[in-house]
Amino acid sequence: MYYIEYDQTVKAKAMAERLQATLPITSLEKAQVIVILGGDGFMLKKLHKYLGKPYKIYGVNCGRIGFLMNMPEETLLNERIKSAQDVILYPLKANIFTHAGKQHELLAVNEVYVFRATHQAAKIRIFVDGVERLSELVSDGVILSTPAGSTAYNLSAHGPIIPIGANLLALTPISPFRPRRWRGALLPAKSQVCWVIEEPNKRPVTAVADFQEVTGVTKIEITEDRSRAIHLLFDPKHHLEERIINEQFIG
Amino acid sequence: MYYIEYDQTVKAKAMAERLQATLPITSLEKAQVIVILGGDGFMLKKLHKYLGKPYKIYGVNCGRIGFLMNMPEETLLNERIKSAQDVILYPLKANIFTHAGKQHELLAVNEVYVFRATHQAAKIRIFVDGVERLSELVSDGVILSTPAGSTAYNLSAHGPIIPIGANLLALTPISPFRPRRWRGALLPAKSQVCWVIEEPNKRPVTAVADFQEVTGVTKIEITEDRSRAIHLLFDPKHHLEERIINEQFIG
Repeated sequence: MYYIEYDQTVKAKAMAERLQATLPITSLEKAQVIVILGGDGFMLKKLHKYLGKPYKIYGVNCGRIGFLMNMPEETLLNERIKSAQDVILYPLKANIFTHAGKQHELLAVNEVYVFRATHQAAKIRIFVDGVERLSELVSDGVILSTPAGSTAYNLSAHGPIIPIGANLLALTPISPFRPRRWRGALLPAKSQVCWVIEEPNKRPVTAVADFQEVTGVTKIEITEDRSRAIHLLFDPKHHLEERIINEQFIG
Repeated sequence: MYYIEYDQTVKAKAMAERLQATLPITSLEKAQVIVILGGDGFMLKKLHKYLGKPYKIYGVNCGRIGFLMNMPEETLLNERIKSAQDVILYPLKANIFTHAGKQHELLAVNEVYVFRATHQAAKIRIFVDGVERLSELVSDGVILSTPAGSTAYNLSAHGPIIPIGANLLALTPISPFRPRRWRGALLPAKSQVCWVIEEPNKRPVTAVADFQEVTGVTKIEITEDRSRAIHLLFDPKHHLEERIINEQFIG
């Protein structure tokens, strides 16, 4: 039994109307599968809504890229969902400390990053499992990305693509100035990563967990959150694992 | 006859004291050469002060990198300055239009760039000499760099290093998301570059010309300003041209 979430675009609304007439739809409480119709931004927001809840998520792309979603064909959607394969993703959990003395706990399916807020480059001290690994990264910022997020901002920042299920996280500098040739690191998924922001007044830094933003950051601690799984469903011919491998061979 | 400008660091102040006792110092009005003692940031600010003025600039590095400066040996500085070689740099001139209806004209020795101000990626339409070359760059931002600036932020953003005197500018995307594999362009120095910021309310963008910052930007027009030359002096064995070529072979 399905529950449908759809974006307010013409394409997503029209598809929702047609599917509601043909699929076995139920209330959210009774649903096993949430069908999500929209673009990547809508999908990411809905993944946050259902993080750690006992649903399987089947996304249908009505936007441009739709990396975590299936192709927008509507034929036999019921059959497609029944034969879809399950991928389990774990989010990152970021504890973010601010200059104002506040603390925020945010979750991220794709990535957590810090980012300079002015023309002053950020200065970041990097710890992994309590060991200082870089005393001073001078850069636009730094990203910690899940495998699912590795094809998103991480790739734009010249980080590596990680196959799903590799149990790795990508630590990627954004426009590194010093050490200038540092290309980042692949870390075991169980790593505890900590970024301490140096000179946070002179060099203000913003933290982002997916689409959620915190300004005036002084420190961030990040770990994978195994208590909140996401079960994503994919058509076998269009499986996330295949798409991530394929993405590495696009010229 | 020299005029000395020095930064307020211990090292720069001490060097200024020693040099004032040994060099032929005069007033700013009567000076031919400005000797600048400090780090890269101080040097860049002083270059702006003397842009287009009839001085030659001899920088002595008292900071960390000192890319536009000479080595901090003090021996026979008078002889070194006399035998130094001249490098002419031209700044970029940026006309920056803001959402608030204001217009700013800023000069840049190193680079002009735009940069997203929130977690929303910037959308930038790029024109060169009035011709639209990219209808939509989705990225953290984009840089236009002079050869002197090509080893600075441009290099951090994975742009190419340009030899001095090549009459080229580097147009380099910052973390490009779409087109994801666009690596930027080398443009003739006489090019007129225009960036139009799309959706400037949803996707606010800041413009930076060296250390000068303008928020809420909607459009920028950039050209090389040949009316305002900078005459930099370098010791022959430590010449800027050699350093820029050398920088391309550092592993």
